[in-house]
Amino acid sequence: MSSVSAVSADAAGTLAPHPFDDALALEPAGPDRFLGRTTPAYWNMIGPFGGITAATLLQAVLQHPQRLGDPIALTVNFAGPIAEGPFEIEARPSRTNRSTQHWSLELRQQGVVATTASAVFAVRRETWGCGEAVRPEAPPPEQVPAAGGFAPVRWLKAYDMRPLRGAKPSAEAGTEHPDSLTQFWLRDAPARTPDFAAVASWCDTFYPRIFLKRAGFVPAGTVSLTTYFHADAATLAALGDSHVLASARAQVFRQGYFDQSAQIWSAAGELLATSHQIVYYKE
Amino acid sequence: MSSVSAVSADAAGTLAPHPFDDALALEPAGPDRFLGRTTPAYWNMIGPFGGITAATLLQAVLQHPQRLGDPIALTVNFAGPIAEGPFEIEARPSRTNRSTQHWSLELRQQGVVATTASAVFAVRRETWGCGEAVRPEAPPPEQVPAAGGFAPVRWLKAYDMRPLRGAKPSAEAGTEHPDSLTQFWLRDAPARTPDFAAVASWCDTFYPRIFLKRAGFVPAGTVSLTTYFHADAATLAALGDSHVLASARAQVFRQGYFDQSAQIWSAAGELLATSHQIVYYKE
Repeated sequence: MSSVSAVSADAAGTLAPHPFDDALALEPAGPDRFLGRTTPAYWNMIGPFGGITAATLLQAVLQHPQRLGDPIALTVNFAGPIAEGPFEIEARPSRTNRSTQHWSLELRQQGVVATTASAVFAVRRETWGCGEAVRPEAPPPEQVPAAGGFAPVRWLKAYDMRPLRGAKPSAEAGTEHPDSLTQFWLRDAPARTPDFAAVASWCDTFYPRIFLKRAGFVPAGTVSLTTYFHADAATLAALGDSHVLASARAQVFRQGYFDQSAQIWSAAGELLATSHQIVYYKE
Repeated sequence: MSSVSAVSADAAGTLAPHPFDDALALEPAGPDRFLGRTTPAYWNMIGPFGGITAATLLQAVLQHPQRLGDPIALTVNFAGPIAEGPFEIEARPSRTNRSTQHWSLELRQQGVVATTASAVFAVRRETWGCGEAVRPEAPPPEQVPAAGGFAPVRWLKAYDMRPLRGAKPSAEAGTEHPDSLTQFWLRDAPARTPDFAAVASWCDTFYPRIFLKRAGFVPAGTVSLTTYFHADAATLAALGDSHVLASARAQVFRQGYFDQSAQIWSAAGELLATSHQIVYYKE
């Protein structure tokens, strides 16, 4: 495993932050307040990539002076569009217990709520453990060619995705694909040693399941995203520049909304995070 | 299908509300505020059954005068204990769009936050739809004997549970059960025609997966619960007094927390709700 730094030297030898760290940069602005701004590297069609918004909200808690422990759960509700430019995050501890802490968050632009979120943090300790779910079989990432996804969006360039299954709709347009399962090897591009914010972002890197199921584009967007963190900081840091295996599938599409359940696995088979979302679609 | 009323006649012929409706009774107490109280029928070991808390928070939105549409997503964070007695719920619309509405909620006792929650509501419309997941095979509920669960808690009497699999740990105490899968036919007891609040409650009727996996009791409690609603009000009302098939399983147990993913199916095979939670355990 090579050592991966959060900074990289540009052509002039200047150290520039990794685009992910640049996107997550927050400036404290009073009690429970932080100022941030969107960055071009994680731009989606008409707003920032949802994963970067989730990561930035988590980051506000991670750098809050009252933070206790590490992330256990994060729920992000995409309430309205986020425009290019500055935003304010309010991150408020709702309740602090001996080993757990609950957070309420809002992202606002010009006083208007664009995103709400909640987070649970906890001090984790060693216990009996068991990985009941088993990582899907896959050839190692070095043997799988990279692909940039099939949508013309900027944020896809921020990820090295190596598709294993369900990379693009393979059914004829207008017909129904037998399943909505997508799996790929994933890491940041350029490579970056992962932390909790990276995992929060990874969980939203799947294109909408309905594109695969229906073999084509329809208007769609995540309305609520929940991620559970199963790995501690040391486990994530030890991943270095290795790829993780990302897998996602829907269970039901009905009356304008479908669900998605995702898993993020280490190459060694540890389940690092599980994540669920409900997604609006129009058809 | 027999007609099921929300009221039942007691021995004296007086009409009493169903215990579930009684538990959900909320009194408006100013803008965005409601007063409620715990009821003995849904008492757990040291506080109310988490499902009734989730249902009551949803109910606050359902009866809020500014409510738009029906529930799509509900996340409940169990931040601290709820004591027997009165509580206050603040249900605040964070953002209202043309067809979706985002809510922020807090349940407090004597000014102290016990539970936080968020909800997404939406006006649903008919679209192309598909149930990709398939209901597990099971004998019809009439052929499955009822069981009250294996824990001495009061709220279990509020449900008619007919176990299909994983009702109790079958492995020898201290050994590891091969899986954490539990499935049962479920309805309220006495029977009650379901609504969104009932579904919110049903999603938390599974005992902690670690009891099954480890074949014994350990301290455990849900810290965050997210439910996605896939059925509209008419679909739920049409269920009448039929049972639903409830299924739940964990993917990973690590460092004091495990996840659970659950499905609630109609007898006819419709996926009514999917639900996920992260649960604390001590061992």
